[in-house]
Amino acid sequence: MRTQEVQHPARVVPLAFLIAILIGTAVLMLPVAHAQATGAPWIVALFTAVSAVCVTGLVTVDTGTYWSPFGQWVILVLFQIGGFGMMTAATLLGLMVNRSLRLRTRLTMQAETHTLGLGDVTSVAKLVFVVTLVVELLVALALIFRLRSAYALPWPDAVWSGVFHAISAFNNAGFSIHADGLVRYASDAFILSPIMLAIVIGGLGLPVLHDLRNKLGDPHHWSVHTKLTLLGSAVLLVGGALILLVFEWANPRTLGPMSIADKVLSAVFASVSARTAGFNAIDIGGLTHESLGLHYLLMFIGGGSAGTAGGVKVGTAMILMLLVIAEIRGRMDTEAFGRRISQSSQRQAITVLVLGSAVVVLGTVFVLHTTDIATDKVIFEVISAFGTVGLSTGITADLPASAQLMLALLMYIGRVGTITLAASLALGEHRMPYRYPEEHPVVG
Amino acid sequence: MRTQEVQHPARVVPLAFLIAILIGTAVLMLPVAHAQATGAPWIVALFTAVSAVCVTGLVTVDTGTYWSPFGQWVILVLFQIGGFGMMTAATLLGLMVNRSLRLRTRLTMQAETHTLGLGDVTSVAKLVFVVTLVVELLVALALIFRLRSAYALPWPDAVWSGVFHAISAFNNAGFSIHADGLVRYASDAFILSPIMLAIVIGGLGLPVLHDLRNKLGDPHHWSVHTKLTLLGSAVLLVGGALILLVFEWANPRTLGPMSIADKVLSAVFASVSARTAGFNAIDIGGLTHESLGLHYLLMFIGGGSAGTAGGVKVGTAMILMLLVIAEIRGRMDTEAFGRRISQSSQRQAITVLVLGSAVVVLGTVFVLHTTDIATDKVIFEVISAFGTVGLSTGITADLPASAQLMLALLMYIGRVGTITLAASLALGEHRMPYRYPEEHPVVG
Ligand SMILES: [K+]
Ligand SMILES: [K+]
Repeated sequence: MRTQEVQHPARVVPLAFLIAILIGTAVLMLPVAHAQATGAPWIVALFTAVSAVCVTGLVTVDTGTYWSPFGQWVILVLFQIGGFGMMTAATLLGLMVNRSLRLRTRLTMQAETHTLGLGDVTSVAKLVFVVTLVVELLVALALIFRLRSAYALPWPDAVWSGVFHAISAFNNAGFSIHADGLVRYASDAFILSPIMLAIVIGGLGLPVLHDLRNKLGDPHHWSVHTKLTLLGSAVLLVGGALILLVFEWANPRTLGPMSIADKVLSAVFASVSARTAGFNAIDIGGLTHESLGLHYLLMFIGGGSAGTAGGVKVGTAMILMLLVIAEIRGRMDTEAFGRRISQSSQRQAITVLVLGSAVVVLGTVFVLHTTDIATDKVIFEVISAFGTVGLSTGITADLPASAQLMLALLMYIGRVGTITLAASLALGEHRMPYRYPEEHPVVG
Repeated sequence: MRTQEVQHPARVVPLAFLIAILIGTAVLMLPVAHAQATGAPWIVALFTAVSAVCVTGLVTVDTGTYWSPFGQWVILVLFQIGGFGMMTAATLLGLMVNRSLRLRTRLTMQAETHTLGLGDVTSVAKLVFVVTLVVELLVALALIFRLRSAYALPWPDAVWSGVFHAISAFNNAGFSIHADGLVRYASDAFILSPIMLAIVIGGLGLPVLHDLRNKLGDPHHWSVHTKLTLLGSAVLLVGGALILLVFEWANPRTLGPMSIADKVLSAVFASVSARTAGFNAIDIGGLTHESLGLHYLLMFIGGGSAGTAGGVKVGTAMILMLLVIAEIRGRMDTEAFGRRISQSSQRQAITVLVLGSAVVVLGTVFVLHTTDIATDKVIFEVISAFGTVGLSTGITADLPASAQLMLALLMYIGRVGTITLAASLALGEHRMPYRYPEEHPVVG
């Protein structure tokens, strides 16, 4: 029992990420990875490795000029491994939990539903591999074609930029080889659209992609998880874009000078990107206070479970919302689409919310204690790190080392998952053969 | 069934508070309430009435100089009614819920525990009345004695100040007749201690006071609610004071110039006061960013249920923490002190947290949209209003009318309670004779 506990897959994931980060740090410290061939300081290499493996995209140095082509390749490989690894691992963990639940459910003779009917380990990895390859290839081709035809980039530059940004987009990594992100393409729908597509597909998560691939024309048989994630994503995407349009319409530092079509394009892109991808086509530092506040929310929620997205996840937010609705309406069950949400799912959702909030609050207070930077910018950077978003108001590079290490820790916690991490640190399960009598404490 | 729904007591509370606010506004608009006898503008009168009835203490004008003695009496009566009304109403609502739960529990033959064994409506009101009168009287006497002996105030001034601040403290109202709050008494333990005592007793809530009165020497038979509230309050009080000491120790605008004894006194008082009372003995505008962040948390959590305190309540926070611990440790039940917390209590706690967070986020974004004030100050004011705390960084008086009305709305929502309000606005319960099949969506 003891040895089994140690080898439990939920404990393997935090360890695997840690090893990838350490290897990445070591490689990035090699002189060959640095543009000046002098070898990067350990804190720069560590921060970059964490940011890449955790597909965040926060940087303390400019990716395109600080690192050599080799260094940029290393970063690319790190975020591809990070994205692929998490997508596979999270799906497998989900499958395991689900299988044991399904078994238990069958024994108690209740209804059975297939959230994930994905088969075994190999086929999950295969599916992730195929989806990754196909999406990245198509998006890279689209970007290369556009960069050649509209910007007349030389072939090597176009290919490198196309491949880098396609992989970065699908993995929701948010790394760009340009210091200003994608601001130079802010009005180019032929660049931004393929990138948005890659972001959204990667960010929906494998359970949703699996349902879409196998039962695209049969929405009635989609799992509740798929329906919740798609509905929530659509609401957040459209709602976020509309609110940003309202808040930024006349802001001279962002949407103000743009044509109406460009305003809409930029708002949609910002809304898509805020929920974890982290590319910016407008200047984040120029956003109004209220748009920053909206970003807090979008970045904290993030994308779909078991995908390349971060945050507490759309499914979690939807379950919490359904729970609140049920409580307000006085319903006994939390329901969605003709199913009731299991107690264990609800309790997980709450745990994710509470732990996530606690991490953000503690991280914010810690960083505030190390600097004199305005609170709204610190909150932004902390949520961006925790949500593995990578958007920045521009303060990260100037933070003291202790604050940068805190951001690195937040990226790691955010990516590995608060529950996974907490569970793997906990002292292990204490099963008891009895239950305590029930009590109804006062609430609110 | 229809008529019964309309008259449900949970719907009476929001209405009663609304009526008290409207009457208070009308009276405060009378010329006799105004120091210059010209009649206050409606927005000033409304904001003050809401702040008083909802025992918050946020003000747009200086209580001691803007209002006439009559006006100050009106404010005193309003927050006494608000505190007494909420304490009684919340206890009665809790009793009802508990009684129906207990009945249900008995029918299903599970264990029975007495959270509230308070008897009928009259005896609840009587208990609230006695506790209120005794505490307010003793604290007022202590304050008057000190103001006479140490400050040589004339009798009328000493009595008025003592009575006003005693009632304000017990009701966690936070109103003061001094423009700078209690800064002038920042190093006087004989003034601050009785006030802290009144704050804490009023803020624990009636269920806790009832347990303490009837079973003071028998902690084993305290309800889980009492144990959770006392433990949580102690941890927040001590922890808050310690963290404030660390963050403010050398701050020249707050604790920096004080002696060590005064630093400790001020930190303890600030920690007690932040969780809903809203008196300030140090300058809130001079706090460090990280101390403001700590205040967000303390103000949001607030005090005990069914008392004069606001916030989401200590009991709620404790239940959520226990739930998270249970989830991390892989326990089936959420447990505390040898009892398991009922599913319904857990679901209520989550609802309070989610609705409270949503209200704070929406309120913040709204106020940010109306002004150019720094985000950290806006968040502070919004949480202070929602938690009916009344501490201020000093921005409230300068906010545009729309933002002031939003703060008034937040005070009302915070005081009446998100769940009570949401439930009374909901379309009524739809009971269905069947349950949907269960599903386990992916989380996190
Ligand atoms: K990212
Ligand atoms: K107050």
